[in-house]
Amino acid sequence: MITSNHNPKVKLIRALLGRSRERRDAGAFVAEGVRLVEEAVHANWPMRSVLYDETISERGRSLVGKLISQAVDVEEVSSSVMKSISETETPQGILAVLDFHQLPMPESPNFILIPDQIRDPGNLGTLLRSAAATGVQAVIIPPETADAFAPKVLRSGMGAHFWLPIHSMGWEEIGEIVNSASLQAYIADMDGESCWETDLKKSLALIIGSEADGASESARKIATGKLSIPMSGNVESLNAAVAGSVLMFEVVRQRSSPSTGSGQAV
Amino acid sequence: MITSNHNPKVKLIRALLGRSRERRDAGAFVAEGVRLVEEAVHANWPMRSVLYDETISERGRSLVGKLISQAVDVEEVSSSVMKSISETETPQGILAVLDFHQLPMPESPNFILIPDQIRDPGNLGTLLRSAAATGVQAVIIPPETADAFAPKVLRSGMGAHFWLPIHSMGWEEIGEIVNSASLQAYIADMDGESCWETDLKKSLALIIGSEADGASESARKIATGKLSIPMSGNVESLNAAVAGSVLMFEVVRQRSSPSTGSGQAV
Repeated sequence: MITSNHNPKVKLIRALLGRSRERRDAGAFVAEGVRLVEEAVHANWPMRSVLYDETISERGRSLVGKLISQAVDVEEVSSSVMKSISETETPQGILAVLDFHQLPMPESPNFILIPDQIRDPGNLGTLLRSAAATGVQAVIIPPETADAFAPKVLRSGMGAHFWLPIHSMGWEEIGEIVNSASLQAYIADMDGESCWETDLKKSLALIIGSEADGASESARKIATGKLSIPMSGNVESLNAAVAGSVLMFEVVRQRSSPSTGSGQAV
Repeated sequence: MITSNHNPKVKLIRALLGRSRERRDAGAFVAEGVRLVEEAVHANWPMRSVLYDETISERGRSLVGKLISQAVDVEEVSSSVMKSISETETPQGILAVLDFHQLPMPESPNFILIPDQIRDPGNLGTLLRSAAATGVQAVIIPPETADAFAPKVLRSGMGAHFWLPIHSMGWEEIGEIVNSASLQAYIADMDGESCWETDLKKSLALIIGSEADGASESARKIATGKLSIPMSGNVESLNAAVAGSVLMFEVVRQRSSPSTGSGQAV
């Protein structure tokens, strides 16, 4: 059992939970909690090592058993070590170090999400979760957006990271993908066309800007149009993760209902 | 200028930022930040007192000037006092004590939101914000849900509190409202009918349960049906605020597009 905070594995986890640079240098990130580690196992995600402590739940214990039977490097740590590395207020007694492994970009994508200047990790994670639930084929992270593999983004993502191709790149490269796949590139914007009146069956990239700053200049340069969500109340602004999710589900709705879809092409 | 943490106004604010019981006893709550206080002014919300400090922005200063011209009780506090009462990491230099004033329930509502067992304040606030943006006529807070006037809920609500009737009540009373207004009462549930195939033009109450526990037994007793959001990805669960928001916007979509709405009554 590891009882020292200076143990190399413990120190690695502490570093990986910090700055994105540490994650990049090590080519690894950390998943915390029973459910997130279960999702990683379910998705066959490459795993370097796992630490757990005695506070782990019954369900967590059986997960640990499974990991051991799969020859994953699993070690018990003392509760005080676990507390010192845990990011959450109520630690779940398990942390896994995962390889930074990228699922490939699809060759001719027809549904891409680009969270632009989204710096709130909870919002970014929620967008990834909705993206995974709506069959988004890839998420592109531009330079001004938070690191998708930060601990809070992983927690809000609830496993989305293990199913979605998530690629960081600059706007030039993003522009090339949009062009070569002949994607419509829509910015979510209050002044845009109603999403209900726009034909979203065509291949598209959805760019969701931040609440504070909207979409970046670079995003506006590659955009082919703007999409709005019609509102009927007194408050005319939405949480960025909500706005993105409503638009992603509208894409699914239109694509899944050829007969009833609005489909008024613009 | 107030420089003591023991000043009665400062002590009141500290209490109101804490437990819901303090807010109930005082019949008041606190709005923090320039934007939230602006929204309260915009909505003509009854205001007891306002504290600000020198760190306030230009925009905040002009708000303070406006409040003084409206004869609101405004006082400057020292920065150390402001820091000691501020709830946010980056204080915006202004806090207002507002009367707990309830907007009336509409007589024959046709669109009500019931966040059920939603304990995460960020999710509850985001649901309120989306409710205000979709023209929801009243939000009913059942016993197991977080206090809608807690500081974090207000922050995520972004002003929704000042436009929405928000009423706390028990399930018996909720059942009576649902009956007397002849509302369809839908629980958001993965096993429900597709929201795209259900006629949401009829008067309805939307019950959004928590991610951890779903909807309560009491909610299930008054429900007349279940609504699902069809998903097409690998991850089959959504953030509760996202799920509620997608459903609220689907109601707006159907009601605003009589010709193209799906409207297949069930």
